[in-house]
Amino acid sequence: MTAHTPLLNALLAHHQKEPVSFHVPGHKNGRIVPYGEKTMFASILNYDFTEIPGLDDLHAPEGIIEEAQILASSFYQSSHTFFLTGGSTSGNQAMILGAFEKGAVVLVQRDAHVSVINAIRLAGLKPIFLMPAVDEHTGLTLGLDIQTVKRAYALYPEAKGIILTSPSYFGIVSSLGDIISLVHEKEGVVLVDEAHGAHFAVSDYFPTSSLVQGADAVVHSAHKTLPAMTMGAYLHIGSASRLSFEAVQAACAIFQSSSPSYPIMASLDGARQYALDQKKQISPEQWDEHFTGTEQALENIGFNLYVPPVPYHKDPLKCIIKTPPGYTGWQLASLLEEEGLYPELSTVKTVLLILPLERQAWTEETKNKASRALQKLTQTTPAENLYNAMPLSPITDKLITEGRIVPVVFHGKQKEKTLTEAEYCRTAVDIIPYPPGVPLFF
Amino acid sequence: MTAHTPLLNALLAHHQKEPVSFHVPGHKNGRIVPYGEKTMFASILNYDFTEIPGLDDLHAPEGIIEEAQILASSFYQSSHTFFLTGGSTSGNQAMILGAFEKGAVVLVQRDAHVSVINAIRLAGLKPIFLMPAVDEHTGLTLGLDIQTVKRAYALYPEAKGIILTSPSYFGIVSSLGDIISLVHEKEGVVLVDEAHGAHFAVSDYFPTSSLVQGADAVVHSAHKTLPAMTMGAYLHIGSASRLSFEAVQAACAIFQSSSPSYPIMASLDGARQYALDQKKQISPEQWDEHFTGTEQALENIGFNLYVPPVPYHKDPLKCIIKTPPGYTGWQLASLLEEEGLYPELSTVKTVLLILPLERQAWTEETKNKASRALQKLTQTTPAENLYNAMPLSPITDKLITEGRIVPVVFHGKQKEKTLTEAEYCRTAVDIIPYPPGVPLFF
Repeated sequence: MTAHTPLLNALLAHHQKEPVSFHVPGHKNGRIVPYGEKTMFASILNYDFTEIPGLDDLHAPEGIIEEAQILASSFYQSSHTFFLTGGSTSGNQAMILGAFEKGAVVLVQRDAHVSVINAIRLAGLKPIFLMPAVDEHTGLTLGLDIQTVKRAYALYPEAKGIILTSPSYFGIVSSLGDIISLVHEKEGVVLVDEAHGAHFAVSDYFPTSSLVQGADAVVHSAHKTLPAMTMGAYLHIGSASRLSFEAVQAACAIFQSSSPSYPIMASLDGARQYALDQKKQISPEQWDEHFTGTEQALENIGFNLYVPPVPYHKDPLKCIIKTPPGYTGWQLASLLEEEGLYPELSTVKTVLLILPLERQAWTEETKNKASRALQKLTQTTPAENLYNAMPLSPITDKLITEGRIVPVVFHGKQKEKTLTEAEYCRTAVDIIPYPPGVPLFF
Repeated sequence: MTAHTPLLNALLAHHQKEPVSFHVPGHKNGRIVPYGEKTMFASILNYDFTEIPGLDDLHAPEGIIEEAQILASSFYQSSHTFFLTGGSTSGNQAMILGAFEKGAVVLVQRDAHVSVINAIRLAGLKPIFLMPAVDEHTGLTLGLDIQTVKRAYALYPEAKGIILTSPSYFGIVSSLGDIISLVHEKEGVVLVDEAHGAHFAVSDYFPTSSLVQGADAVVHSAHKTLPAMTMGAYLHIGSASRLSFEAVQAACAIFQSSSPSYPIMASLDGARQYALDQKKQISPEQWDEHFTGTEQALENIGFNLYVPPVPYHKDPLKCIIKTPPGYTGWQLASLLEEEGLYPELSTVKTVLLILPLERQAWTEETKNKASRALQKLTQTTPAENLYNAMPLSPITDKLITEGRIVPVVFHGKQKEKTLTEAEYCRTAVDIIPYPPGVPLFF
């Protein structure tokens, strides 16, 4: 199959016609540039169109957008793929409101992104939070245990389904097959926030997507690991999904702008083609050689890399550096940035790098910069008694916690309470370290 | 005041550092281009960053984003301005959920955008729909009558406020001062979807923004009339607003991606600077000369332009062509597009052009193209008995209609009914011509 990017090509073709715009947006196909900033904006605005004849409509696609979605559906093996311009945030909101009716009891993996929590509030659902296993030293969440899910169903047989987050922000995954089977046996639906897994379909070398493991709906942030523009995402409906297509489609329209960005949509089309090309050109063995080589290079520099315990696995695109005792991830990240190397995230004991999805070794220059940063780190005095990472729920370590149906936005009076007094209370605002955007208190 | 675009400049500066990205997005500062499409994407991806040190965070702004928002707030005369990357859709949802508690009775101008209707559902509000005045021949909505608002308050004294849409999609406005005063007397809040009015602050020549008329919150689609990227919008809190800042801020975070697009945000900064420059450089008299000249040129070609009746006014940036009797707007639009001129929208009897926000006359070439299109139109046979435009509510023409609190997404069984049988029923899906995105049936 030769390369085919119908949406991207249609925008290029329309620009070639040198059309005169009497429509939105106000830059008129890039003729008027915001504050003359041609360097940044000049070319992209030439393709920042609106729903004019031939350019289809994301919310009722029949032409180039539908073609592009079908190609993505084919690549990912979904029954349908929706392009999203509001990120996984909009995908989570659409899938959750499309799947569950108001008042439904739903099992929810505790380390969910804030958009999942908000969607639960917007949908008026009754969440039952399930704690995943946690790595004590790093504080990283690992994944849900099937036993926890079984216990939850015993306590809440009326549950309508489960919302999983896999991989975790740090790329930790485990097989979901048993959880998916169990929930399906109970006639429930499985929704997965797989925001960090849009590249899984590129190779068998990467973890297996929950979509092919049988999930009913899966959200991908194409922009996180594929070369799509920020806010580009996919919402996939599984091939044997129990969801109502119409309900999910209606929900997608609610949570996205009625003026979705054509450049972002075109980048979703192009990113899918990029992923397909990678799949055809690079074997699992070649990926293995590449990532093993990268890890080796980092270890040679002196970095200590995190490996999760069995049965958990790590997405090779994520590189989790464990800082030497007495040094924080924040210190190391800062030194890396001084060298011009920008990590994704740092915590008290880790630094997370998201590697590029390409088979290209680090240059000597980049390795030297990383090495210098590590050397500068260990030249400073280490701290004594460095505290452990904060767990997700410092008040309770219960595996299963019943959440309440609360208003979406808090309009009431705020009161000050101590942490202990505040048990079972709701915080006036969510307390959310970002990234990763997992609420600690809400 | 010299030009100042802190957000835009910070992105340019970061790119200059030639940083190496180990963070999202997956294109790694544009090093990996989706499907090699450099023409479209090459430069913008260089600035498509994430929340790394120095680049602030839209959802907790303290640096360059806060500076840019403050500059916008100063330009628009708000007490606070939020940058939005989810379009006016996200702005309407944020302002409505931020303003009203669940169950609140709210007066709603009937010709609201679908995002307003969805926000009302999401917030669980009780809407009281008020019909605006309608131009019989064209079907265009004109604006709400103060008498309708008074009657509504007499029937629903418990109403907590009003949601207005002004200007209309076609740029029709009228003074809102009396409505705003009335609602404030009743201790209510006034929220205005002013999506098509982001340019009003550029000159006294344009209509007066509802923000300076005293509205509590106002949404602007910067992308519609200013040179911002699609999905760039502003949510302004009025200077004497009765709204809770914290509630609106919390709502903004719910309805936008947790990974907002830096290019879109930078274009909001640049668009504000563009608007400020226009304000300083072009006098109302010069705008008058320009728009009057443009209208004259169109009339010389043979176009018949719509002017609303007193007390309604038309935004000069909107050009509403009335088709000759027997010809539809769809026919004319199609002929204009054949000539390479793309209108914003066409209806049975009108074609809407959105003019560029610049003082530049139409070229002879463009005028000739428009003229040819009109000639081709009148060379075809006109239709007899062309039907009138469909009014907003074909079943009822009641000025005040009580809406019901309905589920956000319809999960029930669909039934077929005739139009008459369906009175007071809810449609399984909204019936929405797009543009303009105003639901006919819902």
